[in-house]
Amino acid sequence: MRKIGVGIMGLGTVGTGVYKVLVNNADIIARRVGAEIVVKRILEKDQTRERGIAVPPELYTLDVNDILNDPEINIVVEVLGGISPAREFILAAMNKGKSVVTANKDLIALHGQELFETAEKNNVDFLFEASVGGGIPIIRPLKQCLAANNIRLIYGIVNGTTNYMLSKMSLEGREYEDVLKEAQAKGYAEANPASDVEGLDAARKLAILASIAFNTRLTINDVYVEGITKISARDIEYARELGYVIKLLAIGKEENGEVEVRVHPALVPIHHPMASVNDVYNAIFVRGDAVGDTMFYGRGAGELPTASAVVGDIMEAARNLLCGTPCRIGCTCYEEKKVRDIKDTASKFYVRMKVVDKPGVLAAIASVFGNQEVSLASVIQKRNIGPLAEIVWVTHRARERNMQDALQIIGGLSIVAEISNVIRVEGEDD
Amino acid sequence: MRKIGVGIMGLGTVGTGVYKVLVNNADIIARRVGAEIVVKRILEKDQTRERGIAVPPELYTLDVNDILNDPEINIVVEVLGGISPAREFILAAMNKGKSVVTANKDLIALHGQELFETAEKNNVDFLFEASVGGGIPIIRPLKQCLAANNIRLIYGIVNGTTNYMLSKMSLEGREYEDVLKEAQAKGYAEANPASDVEGLDAARKLAILASIAFNTRLTINDVYVEGITKISARDIEYARELGYVIKLLAIGKEENGEVEVRVHPALVPIHHPMASVNDVYNAIFVRGDAVGDTMFYGRGAGELPTASAVVGDIMEAARNLLCGTPCRIGCTCYEEKKVRDIKDTASKFYVRMKVVDKPGVLAAIASVFGNQEVSLASVIQKRNIGPLAEIVWVTHRARERNMQDALQIIGGLSIVAEISNVIRVEGEDD
Repeated sequence: MRKIGVGIMGLGTVGTGVYKVLVNNADIIARRVGAEIVVKRILEKDQTRERGIAVPPELYTLDVNDILNDPEINIVVEVLGGISPAREFILAAMNKGKSVVTANKDLIALHGQELFETAEKNNVDFLFEASVGGGIPIIRPLKQCLAANNIRLIYGIVNGTTNYMLSKMSLEGREYEDVLKEAQAKGYAEANPASDVEGLDAARKLAILASIAFNTRLTINDVYVEGITKISARDIEYARELGYVIKLLAIGKEENGEVEVRVHPALVPIHHPMASVNDVYNAIFVRGDAVGDTMFYGRGAGELPTASAVVGDIMEAARNLLCGTPCRIGCTCYEEKKVRDIKDTASKFYVRMKVVDKPGVLAAIASVFGNQEVSLASVIQKRNIGPLAEIVWVTHRARERNMQDALQIIGGLSIVAEISNVIRVEGEDD
Repeated sequence: MRKIGVGIMGLGTVGTGVYKVLVNNADIIARRVGAEIVVKRILEKDQTRERGIAVPPELYTLDVNDILNDPEINIVVEVLGGISPAREFILAAMNKGKSVVTANKDLIALHGQELFETAEKNNVDFLFEASVGGGIPIIRPLKQCLAANNIRLIYGIVNGTTNYMLSKMSLEGREYEDVLKEAQAKGYAEANPASDVEGLDAARKLAILASIAFNTRLTINDVYVEGITKISARDIEYARELGYVIKLLAIGKEENGEVEVRVHPALVPIHHPMASVNDVYNAIFVRGDAVGDTMFYGRGAGELPTASAVVGDIMEAARNLLCGTPCRIGCTCYEEKKVRDIKDTASKFYVRMKVVDKPGVLAAIASVFGNQEVSLASVIQKRNIGPLAEIVWVTHRARERNMQDALQIIGGLSIVAEISNVIRVEGEDD
């Protein structure tokens, strides 16, 4: 049986998972590919940490050239993470004629174009199923199974940390700061949780998904981002009373040739399939003009789930090497579509505010909304706090620009003590 | 730009959808494949029916040889359905060196081996993503994205007709016969609904899924099948009170090298992702040793959703032709695993019965269960009907053989008027 050599760059969480799957499932992998996949070298400084699997010491190296210059290494797995030196190592490997598999969303969302062009130039595979949704098959389904569709909408829960936190807040009525501490204690959130809770991780994944869905190059800089730091237990409680749950959504839409890409918390109807995606699970919803609505669900992170996707890609790269046809499916960003300014997008909105509790207040506020062409679906007075009343508005679909104008005027009214929160409502007839 | 010729056999619902997608989305398809996909001939008797798209009359033929002998037709799409002549036509096309794309689950679930061997012998593609789950990507994700996993469990809702009926019964409290009539009126169920309501359609799809998941050849004859005809509104109501919904599940498991494949109604916990799959939607759940739990959701049937999968396969076959590597991923049934007798499987059970309403009755029945090693989780007295009481038992996991023995003894007790229904409970810690 033929052998395909693999070099792994980085033996952290994902790298360890990849090594475990390649070793533990070697038999089915070989039989399904038609070749033995052999790990030849591992680039890693920490060669002594207990990883739950024995790694032969001779595999370790501190010198990336031991991988780049080994002619028996056909596939390089980059799971170092971060931009540098991952970028330089990947480019070097491809320039040496090696196919590359990576889970590095940060890198693709920033330098995708350079990476794809280098892969194409060298006629090698550059595969990245693990970069979005951990083990959930989504990149290949988009590029192959759903390739016959015009896709105009793709959205999902693509960050496990924030979904865990929002689920806890929702199911246990707890506050943000409290569940963040728990998530950090459990290792789901990092000591500096900004990348997750500020929505940047989700934005990177959205840039990747939307680039494929809409055939146009999008980077993280194109994505409008709001995190979950302002969501309170009260918002979650009121949302539930209105028939919604709050999720951090990554949303990509195409309309009239323009693309909108945004990450923000959103109210999702309780009966929407996305509403029951809890804890660290992820789900990605795709609407195609032929297929209709589809959804992909699973663990969005973790050692073995992410390794499942990485090793699936290694197997694909190996098949392509055996067939002599790497780079079968290259980059499909063959168009250049305008990215819509967030102010030109439209959503329904949930608005929570504190107002003076006296007659005529609601009418005054409603008339500001109306003047700015924000049509109201409902208003509920939730509770009294001294002389103030807390009220929640839900609007019909309104343009962001109009909404912002309305809120600026309303915020300046003497009868309004505070605009406490503004959250978009998604997943209904859009 | 290169051209790839396609012959379509059958212009019924799916065939029409395929033609529409190929014509309406021709631009994105060509740009994503790198070749123009051109429909050259269509085998169809009914050349006048209004199909919602204009078909140039010169494409039609009544003679299959016009497709088989046309050297410019590289890919044949078989969407005639049924066993014969679909089987003969597919074999002839592959023997002529043409790749074949089909949605024909009946044929694959019965003659899969012959079809795969013929494809391999002729070095052509035989692709069938549309045979399970309509437009939902599941075959390719299993064969590629999740290929690194040992899969030990795959189950799903794979029949839209019965899911529509059970959803209606569940949401509207209606009876089986009533919703069947409505499903027939809406065109979701056929005049003779047996294939759907008796579970045969689901069994064919399960044979295909389980063959791929477990690397062993399974046909419809290996699958244990129970339909939904005995499910009553009362069962659905009691299930809800217990925290479950009733779904027709197709379940494939591997344990100790043995495979179990069964289609039957089941109680699913209300918070399980499968529980909110309603109407004609399908969902397939896959548990892999690396990826953990994943789920794939979407429209399981219909003109355009099924066409989405067929055209995705056409595009894949076209790419393989362009690369000169058809048959990259062949059949993966490289093992022969024993199929477990249904009596040797184990489930939790819901049992509804009518018993004489007097002291000691529950204890007498419970002791029979106990003697047969069926451990009980709960018993609830639901209502009185004259001198009888309707009661519902839920068991812990029990062997089917023991359950059947227990029920035979219990059915013979003078205190038991009727065993009204027995339904398995799935989706909890299994």
